Amino acid sequence: MVPEEVLARIRALGFAEEDAALLADHFLDAERRGKLGHGLARLPFLESLPGLDPQARPERVASGPGFERWEARGALGYLTLAAICAGVEADLPAPVRVIAAGDCFPTGALGYWVRRLARAGLVAVLTATSPPRLAHPDGGEPLAGTNPLAIGLPNADGEPIVVDVSMGAVTYGDVLSGAARAEELVPFGGEQAYKAFALAVGLQGLVESLVGERFGAVLLVAQPEDAGFAARLRGRAAGLRLPGDA
Amino acid sequence: MVPEEVLARIRALGFAEEDAALLADHFLDAERRGKLGHGLARLPFLESLPGLDPQARPERVASGPGFERWEARGALGYLTLAAICAGVEADLPAPVRVIAAGDCFPTGALGYWVRRLARAGLVAVLTATSPPRLAHPDGGEPLAGTNPLAIGLPNADGEPIVVDVSMGAVTYGDVLSGAARAEELVPFGGEQAYKAFALAVGLQGLVESLVGERFGAVLLVAQPEDAGFAARLRGRAAGLRLPGDA
Repeated sequence: MVPEEVLARIRALGFAEEDAALLADHFLDAERRGKLGHGLARLPFLESLPGLDPQARPERVASGPGFERWEARGALGYLTLAAICAGVEADLPAPVRVIAAGDCFPTGALGYWVRRLARAGLVAVLTATSPPRLAHPDGGEPLAGTNPLAIGLPNADGEPIVVDVSMGAVTYGDVLSGAARAEELVPFGGEQAYKAFALAVGLQGLVESLVGERFGAVLLVAQPEDAGFAARLRGRAAGLRLPGDA
Repeated sequence: MVPEEVLARIRALGFAEEDAALLADHFLDAERRGKLGHGLARLPFLESLPGLDPQARPERVASGPGFERWEARGALGYLTLAAICAGVEADLPAPVRVIAAGDCFPTGALGYWVRRLARAGLVAVLTATSPPRLAHPDGGEPLAGTNPLAIGLPNADGEPIVVDVSMGAVTYGDVLSGAARAEELVPFGGEQAYKAFALAVGLQGLVESLVGERFGAVLLVAQPEDAGFAARLRGRAAGLRLPGDA
């Protein structure tokens, strides 16, 4: 699908030009990076989403030194995170800000957002919750979302390093598309799956502690004291593919 | 070894009573939890540490709304984190504080510190860097420490949930003690070891971005908006062992 077609389908849902462009960019970027569950498969998802309100606007409901609270107010998680990123870019953290966003869902490929902030020279750590899909390695009902952890590390001299790790061995999108079986959606790590399960639980608890028992995202963003890490690591890695590289 | 013997050996190194009690409690807690690499094996390590200065005191060198910088100033990482925890308990975050600590090493079992903060009713996320021991899954020299991520989640009605996940498949202590071979010290995850490697790189970059190219720790600590997560999860887990349980 060419970008114009993607844009046209999103505009047809009633989104304003700027929002449609942002959503199209997110889906097309995910396609280019092979993250198909966050890509164009999301167009029919949006088209069938009950109660989609393309006019809804996220709101910054509290703002203090080093901390903000946002509410999606019916806006998509993508557009909520975009508004948060724009707010950070317009008013840089001094030196650190933590932002908690309630009802922020779906959030897409978290690496997309921390890459944007890294390109603005910032270090960013982002997590977001999703429906419970990961059960305890010993069994029982799903207790935690696949809750990815994304970390963006700026690089003044080249490409940032962009970590984006889901705690699931496969994605829910893979299950939906038939690329993976439902029983493969377990914490990653094989014999050490208890580690990824623990991380998923911890991130779920962090988010719920800050936004309550609902979907949410938590972002830590900072102006680096030392912006040289990504360049140093690229030097030491001597050409090895690093997290986030195409 | 009984607690009195542990205390006596630490006091013999010149530590003040309060510091010796704290170090002994950390080592004995690690022993009880089976984290032997952070336990009494650290006594001979301390006794042979070149340049150990039992009188050194960590210092809070910058403090603003929501952010603090600390320097170990030659103090052990354990005592630096203890001073940071005491500072947080004496002046609670409102609602969030991020703390970066330079030269903070060794830090022991990170779960110990976030459990302490969780028992004070706070949600806490802590990471710390260690010497590079994890190579890229495709080979090359070690590029990142085992860089654990610990998350403490308070529980007014019972035991907190305490996540403490090292990105290594085994610990360096296991290698030193002969319980694991050096070639087993790789990112955990088996076929998906690139995920734990990415997390180790991301956490290393976060810490170095905030403290520069040296050892350090980064803590995010918050007063929860919703302190019910741990109790809710324990209810849903119906008796399954959760992260941090004995």
